[in-house]
Amino acid sequence: MSETPDSAVQTAADDTVRAYIEQHRAAFLDDLAEWLRIPSVSAQPEHDGDVRRSADWLAAKLKETGFPVTEVLATPGAPAVYAEWPSGDPDAPTVLVYGHHDVQPAAREDGWHTEPFEPELRDGRLYGRGAADDKGQVFFHTLGVRAHLAATGRTAPAVNLKLLVEGEEESGSPHFRALVEAHADRLAADAVIVSDTGMWSETTPTVCTGMRGLAECEIRLYGPDQDIHSGSFGGAVPNPATAAARLVAALHDADERVAVPGFYEGIAELTDAERELVAELPFDEAEWLRTAKSRAPHGEAGYSTLERVWARPTAEVNGIGGGYQGPGGKTIIPSSAMVKLSFRLVAGQDPDRIEKLVTAWVATQVPDGIRHEISFSAGTRPCLTPLDHPALQSVVRAMGRAFGQKIRFTREGGSGPAADLQDVLGAPVLFLGISVPSDGWHAPNEKVEVDLLLKGVETTAHLWGDLGAAGR
Amino acid sequence: MSETPDSAVQTAADDTVRAYIEQHRAAFLDDLAEWLRIPSVSAQPEHDGDVRRSADWLAAKLKETGFPVTEVLATPGAPAVYAEWPSGDPDAPTVLVYGHHDVQPAAREDGWHTEPFEPELRDGRLYGRGAADDKGQVFFHTLGVRAHLAATGRTAPAVNLKLLVEGEEESGSPHFRALVEAHADRLAADAVIVSDTGMWSETTPTVCTGMRGLAECEIRLYGPDQDIHSGSFGGAVPNPATAAARLVAALHDADERVAVPGFYEGIAELTDAERELVAELPFDEAEWLRTAKSRAPHGEAGYSTLERVWARPTAEVNGIGGGYQGPGGKTIIPSSAMVKLSFRLVAGQDPDRIEKLVTAWVATQVPDGIRHEISFSAGTRPCLTPLDHPALQSVVRAMGRAFGQKIRFTREGGSGPAADLQDVLGAPVLFLGISVPSDGWHAPNEKVEVDLLLKGVETTAHLWGDLGAAGR
Repeated sequence: MSETPDSAVQTAADDTVRAYIEQHRAAFLDDLAEWLRIPSVSAQPEHDGDVRRSADWLAAKLKETGFPVTEVLATPGAPAVYAEWPSGDPDAPTVLVYGHHDVQPAAREDGWHTEPFEPELRDGRLYGRGAADDKGQVFFHTLGVRAHLAATGRTAPAVNLKLLVEGEEESGSPHFRALVEAHADRLAADAVIVSDTGMWSETTPTVCTGMRGLAECEIRLYGPDQDIHSGSFGGAVPNPATAAARLVAALHDADERVAVPGFYEGIAELTDAERELVAELPFDEAEWLRTAKSRAPHGEAGYSTLERVWARPTAEVNGIGGGYQGPGGKTIIPSSAMVKLSFRLVAGQDPDRIEKLVTAWVATQVPDGIRHEISFSAGTRPCLTPLDHPALQSVVRAMGRAFGQKIRFTREGGSGPAADLQDVLGAPVLFLGISVPSDGWHAPNEKVEVDLLLKGVETTAHLWGDLGAAGR
Repeated sequence: MSETPDSAVQTAADDTVRAYIEQHRAAFLDDLAEWLRIPSVSAQPEHDGDVRRSADWLAAKLKETGFPVTEVLATPGAPAVYAEWPSGDPDAPTVLVYGHHDVQPAAREDGWHTEPFEPELRDGRLYGRGAADDKGQVFFHTLGVRAHLAATGRTAPAVNLKLLVEGEEESGSPHFRALVEAHADRLAADAVIVSDTGMWSETTPTVCTGMRGLAECEIRLYGPDQDIHSGSFGGAVPNPATAAARLVAALHDADERVAVPGFYEGIAELTDAERELVAELPFDEAEWLRTAKSRAPHGEAGYSTLERVWARPTAEVNGIGGGYQGPGGKTIIPSSAMVKLSFRLVAGQDPDRIEKLVTAWVATQVPDGIRHEISFSAGTRPCLTPLDHPALQSVVRAMGRAFGQKIRFTREGGSGPAADLQDVLGAPVLFLGISVPSDGWHAPNEKVEVDLLLKGVETTAHLWGDLGAAGR
């Protein structure tokens, strides 16, 4: 019973937050709809002006919200928005929220039931391009910090709150790392909160604890100086297309483990507790296969599908090519072949080290008489926040208060610019998202569930207080 | 000494033949040059008229030579020429000579020192497109049969002599099999002599005893219904590009033998005597590798390079493709992949049976969750004439008299329409060619060595008598 007083205080705070949100809900949704009307499609040059307009709109809105510092940061591409609201408390931790204000292309004829840039509230859902990815999930921070102030009676947040909202995420964030490096001092934080992910489902709120990293390479194999006749020479010289195929085939062992020596070194194996957390999720493999548009699960022996995509490193062929690919036949030994590989990496792996290991291994696989080249593009490091990390615990508590449910854990199989923040700023990365799989990211009829969006508001309203109380 | 009388007769005949050839040499070369001026390029529609003109020219020339039957045979494509000169002797065997009157494309700017269709006699060589492939090697039969008559005093050849000279060989002989089938009765023969090959070299006269057959297929592998994200799904569903690579890698065992069960069944292994005949040839592997534009020999364990290309079956990848092949990276699991394979076959193998074996084997190699399709194009059967075949012995004797040298044996690694003649007519196929590797088939500055061309004339002058004496 010793926690009763705290619980009572918390319940009162929760009520205040809910009342505040209810009071400002309509204006909040109107404002978000206004932002969604700006077609900030970073991939389409004709929308360059809209992307800039979106940045200006957000900067002005954050100023209006109360952020004393708001700024549009130029890049060689689309601009980002930066905002800062110091706590005033010298012991307050600093939190950097990451999101993006650009959106995927969208056109009515792609299958939208309404105009993608004319948002519509229908059946508790706000439809429009960017509603979930990522304007909605950036925007809940505006009402969230105001609710936090209202519930705590503070005039500034309990954390030093920074926001960085980039404008090129849907175009591969080509200038993001340079932007973070250029402003590393201002962006310095004790924790990064990525506000661009989702939850397991409407009924299973979750927090994501990590993303896989990425190493990508292209291997080119050269045989005869030109395509040669497979009758005159077939069976007597090495074929680079065969060499490419054998390289790919040798990439995995019979258990579908990556056969590159040293590949798994340094990886922390999943603990029994972690595996139990994964197993607790209401996973429907048939449904997952439909999402994957695939017919069968297939992967590393000894791991479930979710473990494979979340917690295990992979090697995948993204492309392979060599010789004649047109209609009919052509009896040649091709002059060259090519393979594009990508490796998803998990905590304990580093893309630079993987590049060295793969490069060395490939050299051992290429037969006499075949020349090869291998080139890697810039890698992405994995990020993983331990389940007992205090900031992660704060997120879980804040979500738990907002959702009134047990919060479970997921991971993300993909890789993202969050890793740049982790690397450059040296801060742990946390993921806070309220989007659900049915929201239709990158698809027609993208929407956000309004109830969940407001749970996002509520979560952040609690989170700043929780993190502030924890201190640095 | 019992052979002296025959030898004396033979020497006298040889002298007569040589004298006859010497007497008609200039007119023969002039006539050939006239034919070479017709640019009968079957692959280029603008030369359709020239290909027809070439057929008419040859038919007229064969009539002038003395063939009582000459005819231009229409096909849905370019016309062939047929000629027939019955022996008049009821016991005479029937020989069908095969060649082609169409040529490869050629243009001065490809690197020709003279106009490709303005033949030029220089340093004992006749330069011009088609000089060796195949007009020269068809044309030596005109003077050859006249020399045969002159030396024997006959008014008709000692064999029933038939010629079939097609007009689409350089375009893949698309209508050849149908043509042979349509005229099978008229083309019936005891032996087919293919006059469209070459010898080992200027100093090593050889006769080719066989060609490899061919089976070709395309295998398509289907995974996800569309390209899917290698982050979200990587490591957990089957990748069709990986499946394609594994299929190719599994196609050979560690000894580079084709791993398809049953593939080698029915093949007659090379005898020690046959291997010795191959080993007798002055083979320079470094020079061969330069021709193959390759850096190392590579193939089935236990066989030499020549044995590999002449006498062993193979499986080669002619093309492979799947996923993203453009610049940079794309982190996808591709929706599909494709492999084109060709199998060279040797005596004892049949393309229809190989199709069945490969189809069954591929089905065992494709993993769960990947759908596949396999399609074969029409195959070509191998042909091989046993070294002790009487007709082959006749060819060797005739060449030996013409060249005054030991005749050695080669085979051809490629596959050709000769197999259609073997299949449809049920006759053994012999190869008689005087072209040498330096003649530049399909290349700029194609030429024929005039001395060798006249040895071809001389060989056929002896051959008809030798075959006629052997009877049916």
